[in-house]
Amino acid sequence: MTDMEEIDFSKLDGLAAVVVQDDMTSDVLMVGFMNQEAYTNTLETGLVTFYSRSRNKQWVKGESSGHTLQVVSLRTDCDRDAIVVRVQANGPGVCHEGYQSCFFRLRVGNEWITTEQQTFSPQDIYGGAK
Amino acid sequence: MTDMEEIDFSKLDGLAAVVVQDDMTSDVLMVGFMNQEAYTNTLETGLVTFYSRSRNKQWVKGESSGHTLQVVSLRTDCDRDAIVVRVQANGPGVCHEGYQSCFFRLRVGNEWITTEQQTFSPQDIYGGAK
Repeated sequence: MTDMEEIDFSKLDGLAAVVVQDDMTSDVLMVGFMNQEAYTNTLETGLVTFYSRSRNKQWVKGESSGHTLQVVSLRTDCDRDAIVVRVQANGPGVCHEGYQSCFFRLRVGNEWITTEQQTFSPQDIYGGAK
Repeated sequence: MTDMEEIDFSKLDGLAAVVVQDDMTSDVLMVGFMNQEAYTNTLETGLVTFYSRSRNKQWVKGESSGHTLQVVSLRTDCDRDAIVVRVQANGPGVCHEGYQSCFFRLRVGNEWITTEQQTFSPQDIYGGAK
């Protein structure tokens, strides 16, 4: 692999921004970050793996909920510092608040309005933890 | 506006990650960052405005190329630290390398392959500058 083909993790202190897009609907499900380790793990396992800034470690999305994200395709941008991963989402949703997509709030006028319906009970899945 | 309704710029040193999605095709066109000022300017003008980390200032996307991005809708996520903006893209493309989307590279095997065609000449539009 040449340098030209690598992801550039240098601009965001070792991270790249990752957009997760549902391969069926093209909805953006969530935005996260990968470091080199999480990126490599994603490639090797075919399951989207993020780096958690708050917990300071990599985590396979869905490792606790079972709502994993299977990689369908990966794209990177001109600067190679961001990734779009199209996925097949396992389970009813990716959001720890019980929604299919984390982007369940739409700006209407001067307010953010919840426009989506919950697809699962976060209490049942996460037992109160995220 | 209550605190609940604000964007949280604290997690990324004053920035929020912004996904730009074409409202017609749902393609992700680019990923950028906004600070509070760029976000406010986006709301007020209806034109997507980013914060440039390299130039350390806000910039209206398309201010030099004319390829501006008109806001169709804004969504934020559960943590209110990321934004998806659906846009009507003016002009043939958003990428400074001459492509409709910055995500013109697809991962195939162990390589990044350019799968898109250029839609304009970056030399003509930017005159060599980004």
